Amino acid sequence: MMNEVINTNWLNDLRSAVSLERLLLDEESRKARAGDRWYATHVPDVVVVPVSTEEVATVMKVAAVHRIPVTARGGGVGYVGGCVPESGGILLSFERMNQILELNPSDGVAVVQPGVITADLQDQAEKVGWFYPPDPASRRECSIGGNIATNAGGPRCLKYGVTRSYVLGLEVVLTDGSVIRCGGRTHKNKTGFDLVSLFSASEGMLGIITEATLRLIPRPQARMALAVSFESFPSAARAVQEILNAGHLPSALEITDSWTLAAAIRYLGAGTLPVEAKGHLIVEIDGRLTGLAEELEELEKLVQLCGAIRVDRAQTEREVEAIWALRREFSYSLKATGMTKLNEDIVIPRSRLVELVEFCHSLQQELGFPVACFGHAGDGNIHTNIMVEANADTSRKLAAARCVDQLFCWVIEHGGAITGEHGIGLAKAKWFPQAVGPEILTLHQKLKSCLDPYHILNPGKMGMP
Amino acid sequence: MMNEVINTNWLNDLRSAVSLERLLLDEESRKARAGDRWYATHVPDVVVVPVSTEEVATVMKVAAVHRIPVTARGGGVGYVGGCVPESGGILLSFERMNQILELNPSDGVAVVQPGVITADLQDQAEKVGWFYPPDPASRRECSIGGNIATNAGGPRCLKYGVTRSYVLGLEVVLTDGSVIRCGGRTHKNKTGFDLVSLFSASEGMLGIITEATLRLIPRPQARMALAVSFESFPSAARAVQEILNAGHLPSALEITDSWTLAAAIRYLGAGTLPVEAKGHLIVEIDGRLTGLAEELEELEKLVQLCGAIRVDRAQTEREVEAIWALRREFSYSLKATGMTKLNEDIVIPRSRLVELVEFCHSLQQELGFPVACFGHAGDGNIHTNIMVEANADTSRKLAAARCVDQLFCWVIEHGGAITGEHGIGLAKAKWFPQAVGPEILTLHQKLKSCLDPYHILNPGKMGMP
Repeated sequence: MMNEVINTNWLNDLRSAVSLERLLLDEESRKARAGDRWYATHVPDVVVVPVSTEEVATVMKVAAVHRIPVTARGGGVGYVGGCVPESGGILLSFERMNQILELNPSDGVAVVQPGVITADLQDQAEKVGWFYPPDPASRRECSIGGNIATNAGGPRCLKYGVTRSYVLGLEVVLTDGSVIRCGGRTHKNKTGFDLVSLFSASEGMLGIITEATLRLIPRPQARMALAVSFESFPSAARAVQEILNAGHLPSALEITDSWTLAAAIRYLGAGTLPVEAKGHLIVEIDGRLTGLAEELEELEKLVQLCGAIRVDRAQTEREVEAIWALRREFSYSLKATGMTKLNEDIVIPRSRLVELVEFCHSLQQELGFPVACFGHAGDGNIHTNIMVEANADTSRKLAAARCVDQLFCWVIEHGGAITGEHGIGLAKAKWFPQAVGPEILTLHQKLKSCLDPYHILNPGKMGMP
Repeated sequence: MMNEVINTNWLNDLRSAVSLERLLLDEESRKARAGDRWYATHVPDVVVVPVSTEEVATVMKVAAVHRIPVTARGGGVGYVGGCVPESGGILLSFERMNQILELNPSDGVAVVQPGVITADLQDQAEKVGWFYPPDPASRRECSIGGNIATNAGGPRCLKYGVTRSYVLGLEVVLTDGSVIRCGGRTHKNKTGFDLVSLFSASEGMLGIITEATLRLIPRPQARMALAVSFESFPSAARAVQEILNAGHLPSALEITDSWTLAAAIRYLGAGTLPVEAKGHLIVEIDGRLTGLAEELEELEKLVQLCGAIRVDRAQTEREVEAIWALRREFSYSLKATGMTKLNEDIVIPRSRLVELVEFCHSLQQELGFPVACFGHAGDGNIHTNIMVEANADTSRKLAAARCVDQLFCWVIEHGGAITGEHGIGLAKAKWFPQAVGPEILTLHQKLKSCLDPYHILNPGKMGMP
């Protein structure tokens, strides 16, 4: 294949194959789709905005003939540069394939195009009394296609599972432009290998998702929550385990460390949180209205026994929303420090929560960067934010990179994962071989070569060509 | 590779490589491991009973050199001949790799060998106050390795998801005898492609699972249930949808059709069920004790509105068990007819429940075989039992085969899946190409050749060489 004559006039072929109004060639349009929330960008040679699977297939056929890289883009709000068209070529933006094609409570499914914004699907499902649980923080901006490609999570995944648990069927355009449908619209399916999972979570490197059939579940009638302050982080971590040991399966169990709390107290002023708070927990439960208040009482007793110094109880939807609004203020208060946060989504075995935070404190002492930790404590999926001075010079930037490196090495050594929800993309490619080991790396390369022999699907990601 | 000189003296090599006490060469031992609950059997040339991953790797290395088929066997209670060593060779029986290596509530994980009996893990987890939800009907006999290989389900999967949702990490011996570990012990992990799902559900055709790290969740405090009789099957099916529409997510929602009920009434005598019952529903809910009784009351009102003619309420563990015992009697009553049941585990989009049962009645009229339908209504996963006279002659057997064929064709045409929990194995290999279509079949072949180029792992399954 290396000796084949490659026609370099691929752009002309693309122009002939696809309606011209789907092609964006101007610099502004291309620049606007060059990156995500990570810092790296690369301007694609052309942006294609398809409106149908057929158009995606046509684009892939042209790309396959000419060996042109194709990178799919959803909401463009990822954290690892996953949709950066690193090698140029074609950027397939799904912004116009954003229709909910079917919402069917009788079958418990929604059929969607990949560009559907996650929160839009959730809102529409709730309008008909049903529920789509996965709730990444960016749910008002991110799209289902990206959620599937990265197997996105969120607070509710503790109880309800990650995106993959809701994907019943996929339509995928393969690297040669052929269109396949795997899985289906049934809630169980054991017909062959689990291709749905293989294409899900593949970060656009094995195929391009053009349609998804998602599982909807009955909508919980109500939710309630506690916001709990502790005098120490270990007390908050202990409460997490005690809650689970007692047989509660909260719809969210979100922990916050002392550095973040101190920033929040500075930002929000006294009164919102006890000044002595060094650990914080949000416990949300959902289900039938009957019994929910009693469960909340049980939980309150439990957290009191674990040393809570303040408990705010939310029993109405408005009160629960207020607790989540406060949690969002924690994020804003980190921004308000004026520092840049390097947001990593590491996961550790749950028993190591306290050890992780202690390690982060030792990093702070050694390298001088505060590490603000908060996140999904029930899953052990903690967002560790390394805080870097906005005007950091080159040596500080290098030190920050060393800080990330030490964090990831610690996580890998302690049985953790370097990403729980964001994916590998470009940002974590450097640590990928170490995280998985040589055998698993070889397996990835084998599968990639099997399904995308010319490496034209999102090249450069996961450290692959 | 076809021209390589193959050393046929593989058994000698195996004898030198593995401790002799691991090898069972006598006919009785080999015959005892020749089949599962499906009718087909094939006696392997040798049974190996490994006690460690290293031994499995050694066996695979010998097999790889000589291109000898290797078939893994767990509990041996599958329904599709999945562990039948169709091409002879080596049968790897995991009966001695049956240890729970770790049960760790702090991390919410269990680490198990593949031969662990599912119910044993559940019992041990419950002893420490935790919960492993997947509950195939054969849970007292089947093993975790087989559950993973077939992505086993069960009634509780409606609320809790199938086996795959509980597999965090796997140790797998590949076709060349190398040992890999994918996933890990974290509850979220987005490090690369979803290899855990690829090896799960692969029916032993892509690798041999030698260890699994499973997710445990907090144990629900209590469960309650209703057993409801209806005057018609459509009323029972309507109740299923109304329950879900009202926002209930039962831990089980099991439906039974009129033919099964009639057999049960004959078998159990009058009184157990209303003689006019033509549809039956078990609704089980679980969670915190507070609120459960109220939810049961809400459910009772709902099923009354859907035309229930009798409702039995179970509010204690003993009463709930009695309802499930009755359900098991339904199965025995089918056996008591003296007929052989061809148990198929088809899945349909939930809205087609009534249509499916009507189609089965039409099959009965056309071909003379009753089809007894019962199963997981919430998932649309219905066990359709084609009842064949025990002394059926060849022409009746052919007609029964035609009946299965017509059922599967109908299921495929109506957006269903020919297997929800049992897998393809040998039994459904004939329909596999039709069920998935030529593109997906090609993908399966590609993946198989990528990971098992000499087709020595469980050959003959899913219609592959």
